[in-house]
Amino acid sequence: MTGEHPATDGGPIAEPTNQVSVGAFEFERGGQVDLDVAYETFGDPADPPVLVAHALTGSQYVTGSGPEGIDGQAAGWWSEVVGPGRPVDTENFFVVVANVPGSCYGTTGPASIGPDGEPYGPDFPAVTITDWVRAQARLLDELGIETLYAVVGGSVGGMNAIEWARTYPERVERIAAIATAPRVDTQNLALDSIARRAITQDPDFQGGAYYGSPGPTDGLGLARRIGHVQYLSKDSMENRFGRRAADRVIAGVADPTAEAFPYRDVASYLDYNASTFVDRFDANSYLYLLRAMDEYDLAAGQGSATDAVADFDGSILVLSYTGDWQFTVEQGREIAAAFEAAGAEVTFEKIVDDYGHDAFLARPETVTGPLDSFLDGQTVNDPSELRVSP
Amino acid sequence: MTGEHPATDGGPIAEPTNQVSVGAFEFERGGQVDLDVAYETFGDPADPPVLVAHALTGSQYVTGSGPEGIDGQAAGWWSEVVGPGRPVDTENFFVVVANVPGSCYGTTGPASIGPDGEPYGPDFPAVTITDWVRAQARLLDELGIETLYAVVGGSVGGMNAIEWARTYPERVERIAAIATAPRVDTQNLALDSIARRAITQDPDFQGGAYYGSPGPTDGLGLARRIGHVQYLSKDSMENRFGRRAADRVIAGVADPTAEAFPYRDVASYLDYNASTFVDRFDANSYLYLLRAMDEYDLAAGQGSATDAVADFDGSILVLSYTGDWQFTVEQGREIAAAFEAAGAEVTFEKIVDDYGHDAFLARPETVTGPLDSFLDGQTVNDPSELRVSP
Repeated sequence: MTGEHPATDGGPIAEPTNQVSVGAFEFERGGQVDLDVAYETFGDPADPPVLVAHALTGSQYVTGSGPEGIDGQAAGWWSEVVGPGRPVDTENFFVVVANVPGSCYGTTGPASIGPDGEPYGPDFPAVTITDWVRAQARLLDELGIETLYAVVGGSVGGMNAIEWARTYPERVERIAAIATAPRVDTQNLALDSIARRAITQDPDFQGGAYYGSPGPTDGLGLARRIGHVQYLSKDSMENRFGRRAADRVIAGVADPTAEAFPYRDVASYLDYNASTFVDRFDANSYLYLLRAMDEYDLAAGQGSATDAVADFDGSILVLSYTGDWQFTVEQGREIAAAFEAAGAEVTFEKIVDDYGHDAFLARPETVTGPLDSFLDGQTVNDPSELRVSP
Repeated sequence: MTGEHPATDGGPIAEPTNQVSVGAFEFERGGQVDLDVAYETFGDPADPPVLVAHALTGSQYVTGSGPEGIDGQAAGWWSEVVGPGRPVDTENFFVVVANVPGSCYGTTGPASIGPDGEPYGPDFPAVTITDWVRAQARLLDELGIETLYAVVGGSVGGMNAIEWARTYPERVERIAAIATAPRVDTQNLALDSIARRAITQDPDFQGGAYYGSPGPTDGLGLARRIGHVQYLSKDSMENRFGRRAADRVIAGVADPTAEAFPYRDVASYLDYNASTFVDRFDANSYLYLLRAMDEYDLAAGQGSATDAVADFDGSILVLSYTGDWQFTVEQGREIAAAFEAAGAEVTFEKIVDDYGHDAFLARPETVTGPLDSFLDGQTVNDPSELRVSP
């Protein structure tokens, strides 16, 4: 932890391993900062380059372990997908992963020190997924990479991946968009708006200028609990927790109705995940990145999603999960249809798996087969191979 | 508003029209209060009695208008279902509706004055749905009613209705259980636990002893927003709001990411409903009643749900909605199966309607047909008559 990347008292954030200044950066919705991009690379720079886009609270530490202070949830989040002999094979590809603008793992964000020597806080410009793509392109410029063999991402990282086809269609040949959508649906917009409000109305948020204090940990914890409900399917929650009582108690606030009833395992799960999350993530970053996700729309400013990707003439793999109600199979099909109508080569795979949205992280075996085939330039012909029993 | 039923500064609660003291009341999970039950009756006391159970934040003012200070959401919530010529026909039945213990519409609850001259607040005993049924039975004793022709309820009021078969099987002949379940599923338990935490961790909650101040209106507003997502289906939210920008702005807290993007209609809907709700409902009551709902389990303390209702030999109508993910069709079927195995006469109707859980209130035309037939002693033979186009 250094003065350059300060953290709240509640969440020390480690110094990134690699960081490059890409100079003045104009944000899509206005505002400018001198942007540092934190990134990791894996493999030989002479191999074909593959960009991996991280999910909402992910980091550049896609595989293996991160630096001290980056715990298991933020580092090695796709070790089964990226690495030697894995589908994103670091023995065959030069893999680049960049932390996105607005995040808190080393790329400039609200917690970074601005020109006045203070953290940007609420003065940080609003960020969009287009901004993420443009920042990634600037990093590739620095690394001397003109054209990507592929960009691969899941969840909002999948939005990041498809946005490459709209913003830099000439710089990418293959896109793997996993558990994602052309835009967030209304139900999830609603839940995300509640999550943001939980943060902003926490008195410790102080309008976003909370650095030097623990910050809005209560509100951020609520926001994350809502996220964890979005990440699992109804069946998955039922099967994992049911109405079982927890075997441990997470210290919490006093609830006068709690004593008379069991502390449920599902509440314990949410409480535990909230408590570890507030230690590793900045509340403003959560607010900014969640907003970027909600405001993404592949078709925005274009006639249609197809128009948006009209200039892309590569291939795309779209993977969707039947148990995912945050980014549904129907939404995955919509991406596939838009690219198909635009003339791209499309492989769409519906994975029958009831885990929920987080299957792309928690059940990487559902990703590896189709992604391996896709990056080898083959398509998967037999969807039955992908079926995973619920 | 009187000293006997104080409200928070934020939410004046009107004096109930009818209230009876039922004396010392022992709660299922411990604790005792001198219980007042607030209620309404409609029709001729000589007619067969029908008890209507209200939903979570409902009141005894089931039809027509309530007293001053009880607004549209809390009063006349089932005017199309209860009244002259309606299925619960006040010209043929003597209709009784009681506010449940723990609520804030006149029956003793956390906001009521206790023996020390102060509101009970967090010292109010935990309440269960069994307590609601026992309080309703005490009211019926006072009214000289031994046996109910029927008990009718939706949502948690449906749990209240089926609990009559377990607690007083000899005192009820017919049960109509609408948009309900034998227990809340894990996903909704999770969301409800987040809603409770939003209330209890609001600094203005003050451990529940907030009377005389506005109370935890921010936390209660968050909790209610979560509820409104539970009450609608995914399709219904998409169709009603989509990603449309709102045409009005509800004053809110400062969010540094808000200015760069539209204020969405779905957020406006949640904000509006939260702001009206905190004016009409007590935060402790919400906490206590939500907990009662979550902790209900028809099978609890019995071998099975069937064992629980073994002594009931009347008939039951179960109505479930395809668009309801809070209380699903499968859960409705489970109630029907339990009663069928226990020897009751069962009518189960799946209503094809994508509105969501709140269809039983917002689309009363889906309730009236089957309920009318059921209360006339007939069963509905042609389910196609019930189908309502989405």
